[in-house]
Amino acid sequence: MEIEKDIEIIKRGAVDLVNENELRNKLIKAKADKRPLRVKLGLDPTAPDLHLGHTVVLQKLKQFQELGHTAIFLIGDFTGMIGDPTGRIETRPALSKEELLANAETYKRQVFKILDPEKTEVRFNSEWFEAMNAADMIRLCAQYTMARMMEREDFRNRYQNNQSISIHEFLYPLVQGYDSVALNADVELGGHDQIFNLFVGRDIQKSYGLESQVIVTVPLLEGTDGVNKMSKSYGNYVGIDEPPDAMFGKLMSISDELMLKYYELLSDISLEELRDLKEGMQRGTIHPKGAKVNLAKEIIARFHNAEEAKAAHENFEKMFKEKEVPEEIDTSTMKKPEKDPVSIPHFLRDIGAVTSVGEGIRMIEQGGVSGFAYTSEAQLTLPHANIKLTRVTGKEMSFENAIGYIWKVGKRKFKKVIFKAEKP
Amino acid sequence: MEIEKDIEIIKRGAVDLVNENELRNKLIKAKADKRPLRVKLGLDPTAPDLHLGHTVVLQKLKQFQELGHTAIFLIGDFTGMIGDPTGRIETRPALSKEELLANAETYKRQVFKILDPEKTEVRFNSEWFEAMNAADMIRLCAQYTMARMMEREDFRNRYQNNQSISIHEFLYPLVQGYDSVALNADVELGGHDQIFNLFVGRDIQKSYGLESQVIVTVPLLEGTDGVNKMSKSYGNYVGIDEPPDAMFGKLMSISDELMLKYYELLSDISLEELRDLKEGMQRGTIHPKGAKVNLAKEIIARFHNAEEAKAAHENFEKMFKEKEVPEEIDTSTMKKPEKDPVSIPHFLRDIGAVTSVGEGIRMIEQGGVSGFAYTSEAQLTLPHANIKLTRVTGKEMSFENAIGYIWKVGKRKFKKVIFKAEKP
Repeated sequence: MEIEKDIEIIKRGAVDLVNENELRNKLIKAKADKRPLRVKLGLDPTAPDLHLGHTVVLQKLKQFQELGHTAIFLIGDFTGMIGDPTGRIETRPALSKEELLANAETYKRQVFKILDPEKTEVRFNSEWFEAMNAADMIRLCAQYTMARMMEREDFRNRYQNNQSISIHEFLYPLVQGYDSVALNADVELGGHDQIFNLFVGRDIQKSYGLESQVIVTVPLLEGTDGVNKMSKSYGNYVGIDEPPDAMFGKLMSISDELMLKYYELLSDISLEELRDLKEGMQRGTIHPKGAKVNLAKEIIARFHNAEEAKAAHENFEKMFKEKEVPEEIDTSTMKKPEKDPVSIPHFLRDIGAVTSVGEGIRMIEQGGVSGFAYTSEAQLTLPHANIKLTRVTGKEMSFENAIGYIWKVGKRKFKKVIFKAEKP
Repeated sequence: MEIEKDIEIIKRGAVDLVNENELRNKLIKAKADKRPLRVKLGLDPTAPDLHLGHTVVLQKLKQFQELGHTAIFLIGDFTGMIGDPTGRIETRPALSKEELLANAETYKRQVFKILDPEKTEVRFNSEWFEAMNAADMIRLCAQYTMARMMEREDFRNRYQNNQSISIHEFLYPLVQGYDSVALNADVELGGHDQIFNLFVGRDIQKSYGLESQVIVTVPLLEGTDGVNKMSKSYGNYVGIDEPPDAMFGKLMSISDELMLKYYELLSDISLEELRDLKEGMQRGTIHPKGAKVNLAKEIIARFHNAEEAKAAHENFEKMFKEKEVPEEIDTSTMKKPEKDPVSIPHFLRDIGAVTSVGEGIRMIEQGGVSGFAYTSEAQLTLPHANIKLTRVTGKEMSFENAIGYIWKVGKRKFKKVIFKAEKP
């Protein structure tokens, strides 16, 4: 039966589905009434710079869209305009209307690489909240009890640990819930960490005489390290605006296990293809590297285009063959020198790349020294295949922006040095 | 010093003064600037039927008024129009604008028996809250934390006992606090049970860049029984719209100790006169009955007029001399007869007022039986001096409205019967 197949697609990679039976009934009714389901995804209006972690839920929304339903992309500009008013009375909004609209455009440019703009309803919640007065807000607040609010883990923990919770923080879940009323949402999507707010939406809809929305949550995506969730601050992310070559290199560096998870959450391949891939890898008939190349190309094609994806693959293979830097090299950590600039020959001697300052000077003069400076934590995760060394010509250098180096001296001698983070 | 005298008047009968030093500074500044203090008293807009318990705080407001300050009588119509929206979405207000205005008129008619209308600012909080939008309300909520809300005893108890608290209940103290911002209140008055809300007002004023209000609370007045707080439901109240004779009788029934408390909280006599009265009673130079008469007359004159107060006193003395019913009579309690109507001669025999049904019939026919039916709990508190018996002529009666009786048979035989309340 077709609807059971749809449900299987909706459940792909999902953490929570509340609940399957309600979803089935909604799908049956939608089909009978020839009325697509209204599927809501709310996003913060703060300036976005999306990475693959953000796109998991967009993939889920896209799946609904491809099943013929209406994707509603809701920008929470109302609360964005209030900002976080804790402890101060500020009539000036946190973000101006102009800034919010500019952010919304940035958002749209990025998300429409995944969603079909023709089939997407973009809405702003200021539409209904600006028409709401103080009395309406009090009535909304009357629909929820403190006991239920305290079911939210972070509220409960903060209360128990005597950490401050402002009363207006209780209003935000209600505002998000009321969005579902205003939009008449049949389904709301979110990250698994949003589950509480999505449940509030179900209750608030009921209070306002509507049918409760179905909830679908997706997991937080692990970063390329396979350990922490993908995040800029962990340096384990793949930004959707990154150049094709960088994306390719990062995606090729993930583990085989993580690749399968990425396939499930990020790829457009069908459930059948996904099953075949898993089985093939288990039986050994499919080589992981080939599958990884396909995944990287699919993702790059989505955010750039197919030609650039192909070129990135070719560059990667070429670089891999021609790579100057082997994957395994001697690495040490050290305190960053306080003196700046420093003498390169002295530094090379100190890290053991040359045996004397004289050798260092000679090697530089002969053009036998090249190097690469790491300038961000993210770069430290790059496979060495991606690293391009630069010939060293001068005899002094500044450490100002560097957090580490790779040095090549002569034909085969490599040294990697990572500066220890200074204690704060 | 004049200001110290003013402070003594303000402290008369007060429970809390937060705090004396701030009050002193405000009084000094008011005097220097020739600007009277703005003294706020907020009242519920539900239909009022005031008794003396309600007037304690009005007396305090009047004292401020007599010291030259501005009395602000705030009617909380905004929340009244929302009503208690718990668990339902109701766009129709709990009380219509018309009902609220009618209630406000009833209020004013009653309170202007105490306050000088010329020197009273009557305000409605819809004035500022109707202009407030949802975003303003969220900003207001950001000024307070849940931890501080939970300092309110009833919230804390309800939370600990798993009793429901709706989120909008947290908004009401903030609304009341914001009233003090809108009114720029220097002082807020209230019953001692309001202390938490008055403290919120201090904090909210500070958040909005204003000086915090001084808080003055008054005690809950004990009813005429001297045990419970004055309340309609305890039947121990003196309503300010009651007829002069009823007021007089009730006030004469209070204990000497309670009379001194009533003097402190309800009377206009000066602090010097109050001290003299207390001392005179201790030394035995002032008779409590005379003091009680003066108090009753003062209160009746306030809510009616001096002539009616005088007449009530005369009626009381006359009735007291001519009273048919002694204060001490034989009283019993019994279950209310299920049969209705009942035969009076049988009933009189059953309660021991006559020895036989025949005697009962004979006494009624000779005009020797009279009685009084209690029809409310409040009446049960009346002194017997106030009770007027009616000659019984028929031989059957209905118990429908009675909750007890006094019977007189012949010249000297009295019997009092109180029907036990039926178990629910």
